[in-house]
Amino acid sequence: MSSTVKTSEYDLIILGGGPAGYIAAERAGALGKSVLLLEERAIGGTCLNEGCIPTKTLLYGAKLYKQAKAGETFGVSVDNVRFDLATAMKHKNKVIATLQKGILGQMKHARVEVRSARGEFLRPGVVRVEGEEIRGRNILLAQGSSAARPPIPGMADNPRVLTSREILEIEHTPARLVIIGGGYIGMEFASLFASIGSAVTVVEMMPEIIPMLEPEMAQNLRRHIRGVEYRLGYRVDRIEGGTVHISEAGGSAVRKDTESIEADLILLSTGRVSRAREEKLGEAGVALQNGSVVVDEYMRTNLPDVYAAGDITGRILLAHVAYRQGEVAVAHMFREGAAGEGVTTRSGGGASGGGSASGTIHRSPHPNRMRYEAVPWVVFTAPEVAGCGLNPGEAREKGYPVRTATLPLQVSGRYLAENPREKGTVSITVDERDGRLLGVQMLGSGVGEIIHSAAAMIEAGMRVQDIREVIFPHPTVSEAIRDAAWAVAL
Amino acid sequence: MSSTVKTSEYDLIILGGGPAGYIAAERAGALGKSVLLLEERAIGGTCLNEGCIPTKTLLYGAKLYKQAKAGETFGVSVDNVRFDLATAMKHKNKVIATLQKGILGQMKHARVEVRSARGEFLRPGVVRVEGEEIRGRNILLAQGSSAARPPIPGMADNPRVLTSREILEIEHTPARLVIIGGGYIGMEFASLFASIGSAVTVVEMMPEIIPMLEPEMAQNLRRHIRGVEYRLGYRVDRIEGGTVHISEAGGSAVRKDTESIEADLILLSTGRVSRAREEKLGEAGVALQNGSVVVDEYMRTNLPDVYAAGDITGRILLAHVAYRQGEVAVAHMFREGAAGEGVTTRSGGGASGGGSASGTIHRSPHPNRMRYEAVPWVVFTAPEVAGCGLNPGEAREKGYPVRTATLPLQVSGRYLAENPREKGTVSITVDERDGRLLGVQMLGSGVGEIIHSAAAMIEAGMRVQDIREVIFPHPTVSEAIRDAAWAVAL
Repeated sequence: MSSTVKTSEYDLIILGGGPAGYIAAERAGALGKSVLLLEERAIGGTCLNEGCIPTKTLLYGAKLYKQAKAGETFGVSVDNVRFDLATAMKHKNKVIATLQKGILGQMKHARVEVRSARGEFLRPGVVRVEGEEIRGRNILLAQGSSAARPPIPGMADNPRVLTSREILEIEHTPARLVIIGGGYIGMEFASLFASIGSAVTVVEMMPEIIPMLEPEMAQNLRRHIRGVEYRLGYRVDRIEGGTVHISEAGGSAVRKDTESIEADLILLSTGRVSRAREEKLGEAGVALQNGSVVVDEYMRTNLPDVYAAGDITGRILLAHVAYRQGEVAVAHMFREGAAGEGVTTRSGGGASGGGSASGTIHRSPHPNRMRYEAVPWVVFTAPEVAGCGLNPGEAREKGYPVRTATLPLQVSGRYLAENPREKGTVSITVDERDGRLLGVQMLGSGVGEIIHSAAAMIEAGMRVQDIREVIFPHPTVSEAIRDAAWAVAL
Repeated sequence: MSSTVKTSEYDLIILGGGPAGYIAAERAGALGKSVLLLEERAIGGTCLNEGCIPTKTLLYGAKLYKQAKAGETFGVSVDNVRFDLATAMKHKNKVIATLQKGILGQMKHARVEVRSARGEFLRPGVVRVEGEEIRGRNILLAQGSSAARPPIPGMADNPRVLTSREILEIEHTPARLVIIGGGYIGMEFASLFASIGSAVTVVEMMPEIIPMLEPEMAQNLRRHIRGVEYRLGYRVDRIEGGTVHISEAGGSAVRKDTESIEADLILLSTGRVSRAREEKLGEAGVALQNGSVVVDEYMRTNLPDVYAAGDITGRILLAHVAYRQGEVAVAHMFREGAAGEGVTTRSGGGASGGGSASGTIHRSPHPNRMRYEAVPWVVFTAPEVAGCGLNPGEAREKGYPVRTATLPLQVSGRYLAENPREKGTVSITVDERDGRLLGVQMLGSGVGEIIHSAAAMIEAGMRVQDIREVIFPHPTVSEAIRDAAWAVAL
């Protein structure tokens, strides 16, 4: 006999325990709702188990390794610097385990029922779990994404070809690593393995790495990451064992350049795709577009009381977008005044936002809908690159009349002191009509912790004139944003 | 024959080339004004030459030294880690020289005339420089501060007693260092020297270190800085050679505890005082209070067209406050529509904000006056502490009904990955009536680069409900602010 009171119908059933799913569960639980969270693999999803967290943990080790070798300038000398990947992997696994426990603790605190089982969406209100049909007044589809697998001949069953999942389990640094795909995932692994001694080649079909980055910054980033060769504008034709055959993507059939590269390991990082098709959501009546679940600004699908959040929606595949989407979905499904829904406050359950979160959300001046104007991103290479909002090219494409300014980060005393040989930059884009901040991009050590302020400033509708009046602490690298605001001719 | 066109009357004469002075010069120069900047010592003032920049440069070396010894967890092993203070000092001097050159370059770009000479304020409109009287329509007093020297017997002419200026020139790590004063300057040096091997004792008259810090965070900081002994609530009675005699500050004459501590070096860090008296500004008719120049919210003194900015005003002795005060003064003295003042735009001079800065400032929704509600601060110890606005105790004292939340930084995956043994925290204080953000305090590695967002959010009048809707990048430590916003019961 279970001590849990069995609910015949949950307020919310969530399919998938990644960032979208677990944050939605926590928020709904804090509102006093009965929530069932279904996750067939590990809690935390791609982000925690095979994405953000393990990569950042390993990248930090690689950063320390580089720093240990470069301390002389600052007065620090060491002998015999070694990097042991197996030890780094052990720390990574420990971090993952700790964070998994943390999430399960949050779920318990929010009285969310978690089941290690696959949930299959059948129809509005009904999910199948281990052969049993379970009812939920609301359903949140949050089954995430998988690594894309382009149909490259010689790739299937090739033990040298890994995705980001498998490469996070290796214990020895590959001497020669070929990375197929120069997006942010590919570049983080390029930075990691180049730092710890691999000879890395990045093959990218597009003319430049990391599409959301201003071209000048992308070039600058490539200059900073030592030990990586690039084949930009090249496609992979086939793989034979450890030999990667590539050719110019734009060339004609008869004249294109071809080359073959030898690799000990080959990382496939050509993006990720929504699991909507894999989960046969279309067959269950969920509207899809290009293989992703179609949602409105409240994260509603075409079906009543069926919401979707996170990578399954295919819009911007980032954990923090998934968090926010999960929150928007929950705020909408349990909004005040919804038919049959009062906000029931659970006494003593206030540690995660309390019972009145839904109420406060509706006091907001803007409706609590999903907005994509202020989505920050960070690529955790060494040095990091980060951005939020529009870069100048994107802003012009969208028809904004823009003013921009770009400054070297060396204007910051702290940056110069800590990174005397690094050439970081900050760029800022504003609407020339009213000075409103449209976007910020930065390259440099530590910028990943700075960029969130751009998200806050864009959300708050701040203008460059307002940013000039904000007092930034000295001496910090963050001051470069203020300097850039002063450098805009407006 | 000089090639510079000699102006019979400057638009602005600035006394002092520290942060207040040089930023005011740059802003006024960018407005097309004729500016004379007088600095008798090194350009950059205390901050660049004997404050913020040299200390942060050395602290970064100390941080690398600590990290080099603690890399095993992350897979990095080294042998024989050494720290050489003389090399660190050399790097520090190089950074200072580079930044001095940078400021002089900015001055040249803004067509500011810089003279290496002492300026003496005589009366409104008139300054004496090397025996010559020079006229300026506006005068900015920005002569800064000096290290306070409490009258401790045995201190004068004692070669072991140093202020922050002299200790930045030593070449050997003292075995035993006594630091008198546990404010932020004292604690940064405590962290620095404890990291590189000194046995440090901090003597502080108050019951806790760093007054602006929440008591719990101050205790937590002390726990994190290894190798430092504290004598809190103790005063220094006298110094005899290397022996520092201390006694309980609160004890009665007959029963107080006394102790003597042996030191190789003694650092005096009991605060800084405005140089207003030293500069005899009172005698020249400038109104002073407690030895500092009295100013209004536009940085005006009691005398017409005489402004003051920076440490000379004695309000909050931080470089970034000085920056902003200098800007406010310039914006006010050259405001549009001021008697006899049109905004003259210099063509091609737009790199530092352009000729229209004054115009844009007046489009601001709040008048461009000096505001102290959102002044951030960072103590660059290892780990760092940082804050902005009010802490809970301060907010209650000011009569705000407050809600607060404190979270461990270990809620952040990145923080846990990079600092598995550190116990950082974030605390947030909001007005319970409307959720408006009043303050943020953080303790943890890297928080100094995060706190600026609190300044922006407080300036923008953001409420905790708004912060919850901001998308923070994952995985970063900055997310802890968002988590704290969710943890506030509101």
